[in-house]
Amino acid sequence: MNYKQKMLRDGALEGKNIIVTGGGSGLGKSMTKYFLELGAKVAITSRNLEKLEKTAKELEEETGSTCLPVQCDVRHYDQVENMKNTVIEAFGTVDILLNNAAGNFISPTERLSANAFDTIIDIVLKGTKNCTLCLGKHWIDTNYKNTAVLNIVTTYAWTGSAYVVPSASAKAGVLAMTRSLAVEWAKYGMRFNAIAPGPFPTKGAWDRLLPGELKDQFDLSKRVPLNRVGDHQELANLAAYLVSDFSAYVNGEVVTLDGGEWIKGAGQFNLLDQIPEEMWDALEAMIRAKKNK
Amino acid sequence: MNYKQKMLRDGALEGKNIIVTGGGSGLGKSMTKYFLELGAKVAITSRNLEKLEKTAKELEEETGSTCLPVQCDVRHYDQVENMKNTVIEAFGTVDILLNNAAGNFISPTERLSANAFDTIIDIVLKGTKNCTLCLGKHWIDTNYKNTAVLNIVTTYAWTGSAYVVPSASAKAGVLAMTRSLAVEWAKYGMRFNAIAPGPFPTKGAWDRLLPGELKDQFDLSKRVPLNRVGDHQELANLAAYLVSDFSAYVNGEVVTLDGGEWIKGAGQFNLLDQIPEEMWDALEAMIRAKKNK
Amino acid sequence: MNYKQKMLRDGALEGKNIIVTGGGSGLGKSMTKYFLELGAKVAITSRNLEKLEKTAKELEEETGSTCLPVQCDVRHYDQVENMKNTVIEAFGTVDILLNNAAGNFISPTERLSANAFDTIIDIVLKGTKNCTLCLGKHWIDTNYKNTAVLNIVTTYAWTGSAYVVPSASAKAGVLAMTRSLAVEWAKYGMRFNAIAPGPFPTKGAWDRLLPGELKDQFDLSKRVPLNRVGDHQELANLAAYLVSDFSAYVNGEVVTLDGGEWIKGAGQFNLLDQIPEEMWDALEAMIRAKKNK
Amino acid sequence: MNYKQKMLRDGALEGKNIIVTGGGSGLGKSMTKYFLELGAKVAITSRNLEKLEKTAKELEEETGSTCLPVQCDVRHYDQVENMKNTVIEAFGTVDILLNNAAGNFISPTERLSANAFDTIIDIVLKGTKNCTLCLGKHWIDTNYKNTAVLNIVTTYAWTGSAYVVPSASAKAGVLAMTRSLAVEWAKYGMRFNAIAPGPFPTKGAWDRLLPGELKDQFDLSKRVPLNRVGDHQELANLAAYLVSDFSAYVNGEVVTLDGGEWIKGAGQFNLLDQIPEEMWDALEAMIRAKKNK
Repeated sequence: MNYKQKMLRDGALEGKNIIVTGGGSGLGKSMTKYFLELGAKVAITSRNLEKLEKTAKELEEETGSTCLPVQCDVRHYDQVENMKNTVIEAFGTVDILLNNAAGNFISPTERLSANAFDTIIDIVLKGTKNCTLCLGKHWIDTNYKNTAVLNIVTTYAWTGSAYVVPSASAKAGVLAMTRSLAVEWAKYGMRFNAIAPGPFPTKGAWDRLLPGELKDQFDLSKRVPLNRVGDHQELANLAAYLVSDFSAYVNGEVVTLDGGEWIKGAGQFNLLDQIPEEMWDALEAMIRAKKNK
Repeated sequence: MNYKQKMLRDGALEGKNIIVTGGGSGLGKSMTKYFLELGAKVAITSRNLEKLEKTAKELEEETGSTCLPVQCDVRHYDQVENMKNTVIEAFGTVDILLNNAAGNFISPTERLSANAFDTIIDIVLKGTKNCTLCLGKHWIDTNYKNTAVLNIVTTYAWTGSAYVVPSASAKAGVLAMTRSLAVEWAKYGMRFNAIAPGPFPTKGAWDRLLPGELKDQFDLSKRVPLNRVGDHQELANLAAYLVSDFSAYVNGEVVTLDGGEWIKGAGQFNLLDQIPEEMWDALEAMIRAKKNK
Repeated sequence: MNYKQKMLRDGALEGKNIIVTGGGSGLGKSMTKYFLELGAKVAITSRNLEKLEKTAKELEEETGSTCLPVQCDVRHYDQVENMKNTVIEAFGTVDILLNNAAGNFISPTERLSANAFDTIIDIVLKGTKNCTLCLGKHWIDTNYKNTAVLNIVTTYAWTGSAYVVPSASAKAGVLAMTRSLAVEWAKYGMRFNAIAPGPFPTKGAWDRLLPGELKDQFDLSKRVPLNRVGDHQELANLAAYLVSDFSAYVNGEVVTLDGGEWIKGAGQFNLLDQIPEEMWDALEAMIRAKKNK
Repeated sequence: MNYKQKMLRDGALEGKNIIVTGGGSGLGKSMTKYFLELGAKVAITSRNLEKLEKTAKELEEETGSTCLPVQCDVRHYDQVENMKNTVIEAFGTVDILLNNAAGNFISPTERLSANAFDTIIDIVLKGTKNCTLCLGKHWIDTNYKNTAVLNIVTTYAWTGSAYVVPSASAKAGVLAMTRSLAVEWAKYGMRFNAIAPGPFPTKGAWDRLLPGELKDQFDLSKRVPLNRVGDHQELANLAAYLVSDFSAYVNGEVVTLDGGEWIKGAGQFNLLDQIPEEMWDALEAMIRAKKNK
């Protein structure tokens, strides 16, 4: 067994109908693929129908399961309602919502217009809210239980981060929403959890986020104690666990999957890993000498 | 000395020009009053000019300092820019921004429309962002340093809370913004901090938040280990500290002022405070007996 | 599939040798059983050899795998070293350490002697440290990599809790140790994570923790949004994931498995779940009426 | 006003009798001095009576207030009881306990013996527990109310940190104790809070912690967004606030005073502050060009 292998027993998601926003590419696509392999039907959404259709076709061929492409800009509640209706029509029910659609770019905050800032809040926070509110009301109205919502956030949802401030603000809002509804809507049979991924390279998103030479200059894997970036299957494994019934007692939780990246940055003396062994030898001798004085 | 007395030495805010959004009533007014007493000039803003003017007049008479009422709906960036320009024209400079304007109401989330949810995000998160971005750009452009931003959040910014989910999501976003900019804009001489107040009764806000008999039925002071709600001067003392130069090394921090309310709810066995002394006696005897077996 | 079923694919822990402290009963036994079912060899330790031997025999019969009982009081480093040597002798190597041994009792803190307080710190914090230090040094000395340490903590490790203050202090220490070594010892191929379980009833521990009528009076399941206590297999599933290679990118993380218990207590307005629907109707009407004025 | 000035109004601690453990030097001495200036009587303790007596004499001369040196090794409960009795005899009552005594050194954890690790736990966690338990019982027994305990922790109490793992574990324990007793003992009129200081240089402690050339090589001030270490008066100001009645509604809280150090390390993209302005210009142009495609 190794971490690139698939974790859950076969058929673990059989009978589950899932919506993955932003499911056409990147991590959303990887999670979708694994859900399909585990027996789920998955509807994927994004603004780009062409890309969705290509992905859906590709994944259906690879997995033999049903993947439904549905165009939807999550910023607009009416589009979200239409998307929900389309999925219900196709699948009959929805069991799981994975809020994965997001927008982000790096920039000094003083270079942002108020509008540019708002756009990220609208996609990430209002988009997640739109999908959650729409599905939540639907589940309550139809008295449909044993459902799960999984939100993709970031580690800077709680620490904040410079140069991605709109995303940090919006993802923090998503995390609070996760915890709030985990309590409030538990009585309707819904669970809410989140994943905070560290560096998981994806062609599109990373190139956009750290363009050109920046990607090499700011090698995020060096910030990770494990000294590597994540593998998509690792995220897919965790996501599959958190949407499956196996995690039925996990609720209101955010699981960090970053190899220890954020705590490495946070801890005050973690930078001492640059001290070579010989200097530790010398220090030890020095401390011992002082003690014995 | 007692907690209703005023903490900082006289003149602690002399020479400071301050903007307090939502400064016309409630906690914003109380903080404004203390800032004025400490020698600052304060501009107060809200949508209701009439109320602002009444408050400004009242506070100027009480404190002998300058209080400037400026109408502004923080949801609109152009209004925020106009407000900033008005204050700069009147005061010459701005040293401190207190983002206190907020909106909130209690409701089961499934009873909210997508629009109602958005309104709170717009006032709280986008409003705070608008004021912060506007003043931040101004300070950077004019190379004006030693400034401070203080944001009023809530304890459910990190725990989440049912029945106030829009506010929880938005306040969490404000907290992440606080921490992000505390790092990013430190180089421009700005500090960012937040206060998370527990239950501080205010005529307007509490009546709106817990209307009618709810206020008695859900006595928030009972959730507080100290068994009382907060006094406005206690919040004013902390706020004055955090905007003053005395807190110059506090940055990116949120200080909770709730008498221990949230941790009392959070800790797993805190509910055992209902066990009477006699039962503890009996338990102790039982445990001892078991040990000796 | 449901949450009482077993999650990981067959053989997921084949080739793994595991030490479970406190593995003779309760949750430790349940996790041990599942590890054995997944193909691992497991050494279980506690002070009570008789109980260990009974458990080991029972589990070997049920699972067909190897379970080794080793007596050890984790408070004493020399006993821990002996235990480690015994396991190495039997299994050749150790891949995983599960620090599950603990001590706890409820009591008003003012009724505790300094010694009683120390005993819990010694078992929980120093015991975990002893096992971790001993195995860590062994892995470093033998250059043995791809190992994992899993620590069982509690949700009050970060919130604190009245009436279990020694346990809260010690478990918080274990959590900080988890995060510290996740960073420091990553270079030696070790991962460190923790689980914070909510209410999982076990015959022994719960009876000791909430004796007599207390268990009924303070029904912890009522604090849980999901309205039930956890099932042992749910904890075993999560533990198996976190010690397996499938979680290779989870490092320095604590996963809460409590149905949302602690956040339900923490969030300021979560208590409003006592408001009946009709009152919400009335409130909504009241708010609407005010708005229209 | 600037941050090296004294914050609280004169006489703010008049009538308060305070114990400061580890009060003979470093930050403990600085806080003691300010408490004396504000009108308090202060007993300072440590293992080194000679140093205590020198400090007490010096501070009495400088401030004109009463400073009592009491020898005490906080690891031993009987010594703590004797210390408490000595102070009560001298002052009549004790109002405030400042747990400041600590021990720490940097070392790779694998170089630590189990005993060396234990020593730090004993000084920091058990020492704080001993003083807290002793004073707490005394206050309960004598029905003496309106008391306050302030604990000095670190930012790695919640993040953990490599190379100071015993201190991280112990300080985390102290923080959990702070939060636990803030709830449990509030009914006896005690408040509990903590301060997490960032880099505050002190002759003794820093030289011991980062000896020789390490202090220059690992310049902690560079980790701080504000780009400087803290000034002792800044810590004294915050400590005075938190032990005074002005903070009567702050309970169970830890206030970080680190210039934003830990969040700067924690946030994922904070390292991008190394990008020069020209590269941001180029990036902006690149992003705009892509958008317009």
